Amino acid sequence: MFEDIKAIFKNDPAEKGLQWILYPGLHAITCHRYLAHPLYKAHLFFLARFVSQLNRFMTNIEIHPGAKIGKGLFIDHGSAIVIGETAVIGENCTLFHNVTLGGTGKHTGKRHPTIGDNVFIGTGATLLGPITVGSNVKIGAESVIIMHDIPSNCTVVGAPGRIVRLNGEKVDIKPERTKE
Amino acid sequence: MFEDIKAIFKNDPAEKGLQWILYPGLHAITCHRYLAHPLYKAHLFFLARFVSQLNRFMTNIEIHPGAKIGKGLFIDHGSAIVIGETAVIGENCTLFHNVTLGGTGKHTGKRHPTIGDNVFIGTGATLLGPITVGSNVKIGAESVIIMHDIPSNCTVVGAPGRIVRLNGEKVDIKPERTKE
Amino acid sequence: MFEDIKAIFKNDPAEKGLQWILYPGLHAITCHRYLAHPLYKAHLFFLARFVSQLNRFMTNIEIHPGAKIGKGLFIDHGSAIVIGETAVIGENCTLFHNVTLGGTGKHTGKRHPTIGDNVFIGTGATLLGPITVGSNVKIGAESVIIMHDIPSNCTVVGAPGRIVRLNGEKVDIKPERTKE
Repeated sequence: MFEDIKAIFKNDPAEKGLQWILYPGLHAITCHRYLAHPLYKAHLFFLARFVSQLNRFMTNIEIHPGAKIGKGLFIDHGSAIVIGETAVIGENCTLFHNVTLGGTGKHTGKRHPTIGDNVFIGTGATLLGPITVGSNVKIGAESVIIMHDIPSNCTVVGAPGRIVRLNGEKVDIKPERTKE
Repeated sequence: MFEDIKAIFKNDPAEKGLQWILYPGLHAITCHRYLAHPLYKAHLFFLARFVSQLNRFMTNIEIHPGAKIGKGLFIDHGSAIVIGETAVIGENCTLFHNVTLGGTGKHTGKRHPTIGDNVFIGTGATLLGPITVGSNVKIGAESVIIMHDIPSNCTVVGAPGRIVRLNGEKVDIKPERTKE
Repeated sequence: MFEDIKAIFKNDPAEKGLQWILYPGLHAITCHRYLAHPLYKAHLFFLARFVSQLNRFMTNIEIHPGAKIGKGLFIDHGSAIVIGETAVIGENCTLFHNVTLGGTGKHTGKRHPTIGDNVFIGTGATLLGPITVGSNVKIGAESVIIMHDIPSNCTVVGAPGRIVRLNGEKVDIKPERTKE
């Protein structure tokens, strides 16, 4: 939780003094880390989901109790975020409001994205399917990434998302759908 | 309502046991079917709207009391969904979060979409205007469909939405704005 | 506030009688104008933010207490709207749900958009950065405008947003990123 608070100070230019205690993003993550996810791991699925839905009601951020979240996550604004059951998020990531880490409806088992470390996901970006996003990735606002992986050290923009920067060089790569 | 519950089990791979009673989508549809819409039909418009706004507050799903919804609707996640007053939804449809069935602001009277049966509308799709969407249609995440109809038995993706599959064949059709 | 109510009647074809008193958009604006923003101007930042977060919880509309909003604003539906700290909105504007007037994360100080008078911003439009949007502008649903200005008297659609009408003439202009 201390790492999550540090993440707010590192990332938010509007933060003044003690306001971080009001952030719904922090509330949602804390509730998930210390209540919903432990209940899920203890196979108390109904109770875990109940806590998660209460969390959604209070913060408007929907994190399925099964999602695995690394330390130092910063959720800014957070409205209408959906993070699916089998999603995995690495360390020191930033999620803006309206981001979806969801499924396509065609898969069972692992069906949501796995995100690396130091990943920034802008407002309204939609990532669907059991894909893998590398580390040190920036995903622009309103990008759409469906059923293909994203390498490390790159910037993705657009719908469908194109890689416009890779290992510090300007590029223009349209990733192929490598998964069905 | 029984049909709505069956729709959850048919569509949601994360569903475990009794969790369906926690789903805001089910709450929102039930409240609309048995309270808001009947009040609207009884011309108790203010009360109907009050119930609908309370429904929005509790579930973050906004269904205007005038909207007509067929049986077996499944709303997944649901945050920030907006369904307009003159919208019509057929049977056995699926709506993800952030879907808008809205108006363009230029029309009066019938000004929201009419959706057929077995229609799947992905995350963040936006449908505006008094358009008609056929049956057995799949509308991809983040698609935008403004002021044109969509035929039956097709798949639509992109912004603006293109028909990429029609009657089982791959196609690439950019629908023309057939309405003003 | 009277101007805000007039704006509802002018813009909403679904409005019937007294329903305006139920509109979350009106609640959010009133709370911002008469409570959150005055507290912010009095440098009571924590209290201002607390009111703003409460406002977000009640209405699902997030207006930073620092945002400056001209008279006669109409917010329709409103779910998941985010208006940043240094955003400025002129008179007689309309905002639909899911609109973001946000920052890019790269700036400090003035880092959110300035919007002119009589501007219509459709569902899900995303405007990021310390940009200026002129007056009498219509921004289409799901448009994305990042780090460039928009002139007066025009219509913008698409992602990235293109100017398709300017001073009454049909055009097709892709604005350049004039800012870094």
